[in-house]
Amino acid sequence: MTQAIQDNYSERFAHCYGCGPANPHGMHIKSYFDGDGTIARYTPDPAHSGGVPDHVYGGLIASLLDCHGTASAAAFAHRAQGRSVGDGQELPRFVTGTLTVEYRKPTPIDVELTVRGRLKAHDGRKITVALELTARDEVCARGEMIAIEIPPRL
Amino acid sequence: MTQAIQDNYSERFAHCYGCGPANPHGMHIKSYFDGDGTIARYTPDPAHSGGVPDHVYGGLIASLLDCHGTASAAAFAHRAQGRSVGDGQELPRFVTGTLTVEYRKPTPIDVELTVRGRLKAHDGRKITVALELTARDEVCARGEMIAIEIPPRL
Repeated sequence: MTQAIQDNYSERFAHCYGCGPANPHGMHIKSYFDGDGTIARYTPDPAHSGGVPDHVYGGLIASLLDCHGTASAAAFAHRAQGRSVGDGQELPRFVTGTLTVEYRKPTPIDVELTVRGRLKAHDGRKITVALELTARDEVCARGEMIAIEIPPRL
Repeated sequence: MTQAIQDNYSERFAHCYGCGPANPHGMHIKSYFDGDGTIARYTPDPAHSGGVPDHVYGGLIASLLDCHGTASAAAFAHRAQGRSVGDGQELPRFVTGTLTVEYRKPTPIDVELTVRGRLKAHDGRKITVALELTARDEVCARGEMIAIEIPPRL
């Protein structure tokens, strides 16, 4: 099975509450390559309700797009070096410069959500990722992230 | 003491994980008027770590701006009716149309964070809020939200 992108982060950068495999309290979002793009799946907890009853809160959607976006950037940068996720090389680690989330319709809380990422631009340490969140094949949110590679010394 | 904006939402819309007073598992973000603008304070949990060690994850910052933004919109709309928070009238409830977050520097995890909101535009059911997150008086993130009032029937 293909390895999750986040499972190939270095130990130092693996403690993110949203997606770090080394954070015992976190959400453990897992992102994978899927064809040319990336994919993550996440089932909300009933507690994750939002302003609209029986739907998820906006912060969860932003969290999913944020963690999947930086993971996607790491994977795209690794691929651009001719490498593949799980080849034994630690991935570069990206953080968010800017994240825009467009909430198109309330996102249901009782189903598995799918987040997809697509490489939009790659300019040195800066990668732009287009993001989309669907529930029951309906687009509930779209986003765009500018992700920046962390210098290894940080 | 001034009442929190979220404590004046109707029961139906008070279950948000980020800021709903009726969600026993949630973060209970509380927003208040502060002069012309709004303010919320929140101390992260040590588990809320992000990609950069000893700093918070991006999803938490987005959640704080998101919940404080919709609360600010509700308060600004209420004020535009000549009313004040805590006057016994339930506040209108806003949800996020679009949220943009600019992560300007890593946000420390070991201090109380302050989020401020400022009314930028009010056009019928649509309110634009400018947002800023500071830690130790340093701006760590800026944001902008377009919030939409939920029709009462929803």
